[in-house]
Amino acid sequence: MKRKKGIFIVFEGPEGSGKTTQIKLLAKYFKKRRYKFVLTREPGGTKVAEKVRKIILTTGNIISPLTELLLYESSRSQHVDEIIKPNLEKGKIVISDRFSDASIAYQGYGRGIDIKLVEQLNNIATYGIKPDITILLDISVEEGLSRIQNNRKKIDRLEQEKIDFHKKIRFGYLQLAKKRNNIIKINVEDKDKLVIHKEILNIIKNRLKL
Amino acid sequence: MKRKKGIFIVFEGPEGSGKTTQIKLLAKYFKKRRYKFVLTREPGGTKVAEKVRKIILTTGNIISPLTELLLYESSRSQHVDEIIKPNLEKGKIVISDRFSDASIAYQGYGRGIDIKLVEQLNNIATYGIKPDITILLDISVEEGLSRIQNNRKKIDRLEQEKIDFHKKIRFGYLQLAKKRNNIIKINVEDKDKLVIHKEILNIIKNRLKL
Repeated sequence: MKRKKGIFIVFEGPEGSGKTTQIKLLAKYFKKRRYKFVLTREPGGTKVAEKVRKIILTTGNIISPLTELLLYESSRSQHVDEIIKPNLEKGKIVISDRFSDASIAYQGYGRGIDIKLVEQLNNIATYGIKPDITILLDISVEEGLSRIQNNRKKIDRLEQEKIDFHKKIRFGYLQLAKKRNNIIKINVEDKDKLVIHKEILNIIKNRLKL
Repeated sequence: MKRKKGIFIVFEGPEGSGKTTQIKLLAKYFKKRRYKFVLTREPGGTKVAEKVRKIILTTGNIISPLTELLLYESSRSQHVDEIIKPNLEKGKIVISDRFSDASIAYQGYGRGIDIKLVEQLNNIATYGIKPDITILLDISVEEGLSRIQNNRKKIDRLEQEKIDFHKKIRFGYLQLAKKRNNIIKINVEDKDKLVIHKEILNIIKNRLKL
């Protein structure tokens, strides 16, 4: 199935909220129905943006909050220009693991950069492209971090931040979900992944008429 | 000699204008007089900014004009935060091979990005820090590029651009020099490097009371 205009679906959420798992399940569903879709992620998604990702996430790199934001925005603008925009124009569904709201949560609420400045840079870097729907997987910071610590071999520069930082990020995401009606919050704590998947499918079917 | 407030000297100019040579000669002069100074460069100057430099300058990397600008600004903000600002606060002289005006010339005039957007991002990334003086070494594009081709083993992603691109950059620098009286243009074509060095010293002594 090919559409005239693509659909842009973004997954957001604090560390350990299970975005990767849910994106895989959604992709499986789209594949079964032969929908044309592209999976991508931020920071990253293109060759150059993945190089920027490496700089951002490498533990030990000395990066000021403003530099961190500008690095995210540089990787974002390449990602939009090279992957998101052309695929939406081809009528495909684009699913991205994080997008510009992550900078509001992480660099705005988390690092304390003025939210207006983050929004301004987001607007520049995204060429004004916005998700049709954002699925926000919500989980308590304690539970999210403990999942990461159990599942990952290596913890990255952002994951390794203090619990306080992660609490600010969750708070930021929840604030965004209150303000914008294209962000749908799903509570994922103590829920089976297939139950969550069904919830996501229902939302996507209802909202996007898929 | 230590000052209460540092002095920020920037060298700009098209490719092959001899910035490196002149910076070395100036540094030698400062060293002889026991002035406290720091040599640095853009893009780069810090560990992370040098990693960004590598992404920007590697031939073959696919980078849109906006991404290129944002990469420069991310390296710039780290450079200001980690090197330029603290050294100026310590009362040192900071000499930088290129700074924010390079983005006006290269990404603005060269790549065609709206000059106002470049200025806006420069303001954000520099925390408002401006050079006390900028020495603009001016040379014809043909002569500059032929010097590079004779002297360098490897030509980088920006140096390898078409002659038209380099002409736009020179034009951009000349426009800036007309508008701002803290940019001093020196014609370097067919001049001996020591003659140019003397001209630079005179300007610096007069303007900065060094």
